[in-house]
Amino acid sequence: MPNAANDPAARRDLLRARLVELEVPAALVTHLVNVRYLTGFTGSNAALLVTTDGTDVLATDGRYITQSAQQAPDVERVIDRRVATILAAWAAEAGMGTLAYESHRVTVDGLRALQQTEPQLELISLGAAVEELRSAKDEGEIELLRQACAIADRALAELIAAGGIRVGRSEVQIARDLDWRMLELGAEAVSFETIVASGSNSAIPHHRPTGRQVEPGDFVKLDFGAACAGYHSDMTRTVVVGQLAEWQREIYDLVADAQRIGREMLAVGVECAAVDAAVRDRISDAGHAEHYTHGLGHGVGLEIHEAPMLGRDAPGRLGDRMPVTVEPGVYLEGRGGVRIEDTLVVRTDGPELLTMTTKDLCIL
Amino acid sequence: MPNAANDPAARRDLLRARLVELEVPAALVTHLVNVRYLTGFTGSNAALLVTTDGTDVLATDGRYITQSAQQAPDVERVIDRRVATILAAWAAEAGMGTLAYESHRVTVDGLRALQQTEPQLELISLGAAVEELRSAKDEGEIELLRQACAIADRALAELIAAGGIRVGRSEVQIARDLDWRMLELGAEAVSFETIVASGSNSAIPHHRPTGRQVEPGDFVKLDFGAACAGYHSDMTRTVVVGQLAEWQREIYDLVADAQRIGREMLAVGVECAAVDAAVRDRISDAGHAEHYTHGLGHGVGLEIHEAPMLGRDAPGRLGDRMPVTVEPGVYLEGRGGVRIEDTLVVRTDGPELLTMTTKDLCIL
Repeated sequence: MPNAANDPAARRDLLRARLVELEVPAALVTHLVNVRYLTGFTGSNAALLVTTDGTDVLATDGRYITQSAQQAPDVERVIDRRVATILAAWAAEAGMGTLAYESHRVTVDGLRALQQTEPQLELISLGAAVEELRSAKDEGEIELLRQACAIADRALAELIAAGGIRVGRSEVQIARDLDWRMLELGAEAVSFETIVASGSNSAIPHHRPTGRQVEPGDFVKLDFGAACAGYHSDMTRTVVVGQLAEWQREIYDLVADAQRIGREMLAVGVECAAVDAAVRDRISDAGHAEHYTHGLGHGVGLEIHEAPMLGRDAPGRLGDRMPVTVEPGVYLEGRGGVRIEDTLVVRTDGPELLTMTTKDLCIL
Repeated sequence: MPNAANDPAARRDLLRARLVELEVPAALVTHLVNVRYLTGFTGSNAALLVTTDGTDVLATDGRYITQSAQQAPDVERVIDRRVATILAAWAAEAGMGTLAYESHRVTVDGLRALQQTEPQLELISLGAAVEELRSAKDEGEIELLRQACAIADRALAELIAAGGIRVGRSEVQIARDLDWRMLELGAEAVSFETIVASGSNSAIPHHRPTGRQVEPGDFVKLDFGAACAGYHSDMTRTVVVGQLAEWQREIYDLVADAQRIGREMLAVGVECAAVDAAVRDRISDAGHAEHYTHGLGHGVGLEIHEAPMLGRDAPGRLGDRMPVTVEPGVYLEGRGGVRIEDTLVVRTDGPELLTMTTKDLCIL
């Protein structure tokens, strides 16, 4: 796949080539992140028409007249709140009989509205063509992910150095502290609502921080990330505060070893499901199959979860320059849990690790 | 509409009554906010089956075994990642021939997957039945909105008192400061990415904060909110830093007067489009029709934008206990703009103002 290097016009040309293969004259892109990827426009209401004859039209509403002109100067623009139907009308007026649309994103009512507006237009599925383009990143995108991961690494290091994870501090306080550090270090936003889960709460994979205060002997699990220019980092570390118990050492070492197996399997051409299976086998062999209740990982970029997925029945294979997370966990209800997660980039010469914080067990 | 007082079971009963009217035995609710409203469950992957025979089934995945049991103890639970199809299968197995689904939320591919899994099941549109229930809030919900608005009011007051809006400070710095204050005051999150737009940037309705520093004579427009237990506040104020110019006074007074007209029109039974029209007429009569490029307002609750909409061609009428925003603006490209926004609750005895910060022009 060519390296488009943050060049929306080149990305549109790749989609155009796909349209030629599909033998459709135009694609209506309505998923906002896909519109951003293909134009640079970041507004909250937009659609894009990409045509094989080379004309690309961005539709957005009156709030974004100035912003769309600044961010997407190289496409035609239509200002209308009904962004999808106005572009379908544009395509029909241009004499196009068929239009490919994002059937995995457009709602049933949305499709009906398009059909009613332009009954003579044949609407066929584009599938996840833009998401497929997005899964392999160019070096400009990877650099943004690298920056985002570096901010997360540094924020956690500073949090720990400042004694920010300690007995008596609440999950909410720790999460706010970590978030604030990421923003101060230049993150435009946090990637998602930061998870800080202490003690028995660490057995809840997607725990929302509460007022629970850290107690001696707790696991504290932190799952968090920074966003830079739209690109998201994602990392989980689990630390122990105070005295380490034997059961904690056991599941920590197990998860760390399983996670290593997953990282080492990342290579161009490997089946996504095979990576998940290898990690799951390691955890199952240790007798914890039922304590690992989620998929292994996911692609990451303009969305925090995107293609490819690494799961039990995930389709497809890994490709060059695909950033993915590897994040197995073992959760013992009522006691505590461990998850260890890195973001890495699949490359021909082996995976590139973007999240650099140590995975050695950290006892605070 | 009965006052369900933060009682998910009572809300499900209201939906059940709607199903009886529609003559369908069950509804498949897949929009996550609707699932939360009807169950209390806040996980990121869930669907809910509400049946006329009184059985309600929540589906979620393995990450949420503990959390779903805690938050939604009064419904049956199915743990499966494919939340929608598993519930369609449940309905088919229970002998249901018809299932109402959220056609405004379910994607075309999602519907196809349901049809392929259960080809004998007739799928009909539920419409926005749950959103309609949600539009009129109970007093418990309004109290949460009141708390969220109070946090936003206080954060802005503290920001101004601390000299946080001053010459030389960047939009990003002001936005971070405001966000931090809201979180410190008890917000669980900010409602949306805070808008701080200074000088000519204030002419961009949905401007994203930049490194631009406030200059003497700038408008500074702040659009922000706090979230409390899932409920969002929304407020915009526009201030002047330094010397006020005549054109600034003119458009500020115009927007303030138009906004007053909008607030005063809020009453049970009034057409949503009529409120928009009255405000738009006031701005048009002053010669600024083309400088007011967006709708007047929107409902607010578990989502920052929800029913009812107050816009040019908005359907429906206002009802008792509907919280809405009223937020006209005038934007002069290249110079600056003003928006003034309150959140109010429509009530039989007149609108209740939730955002209490003064709308007198504040010159800092």
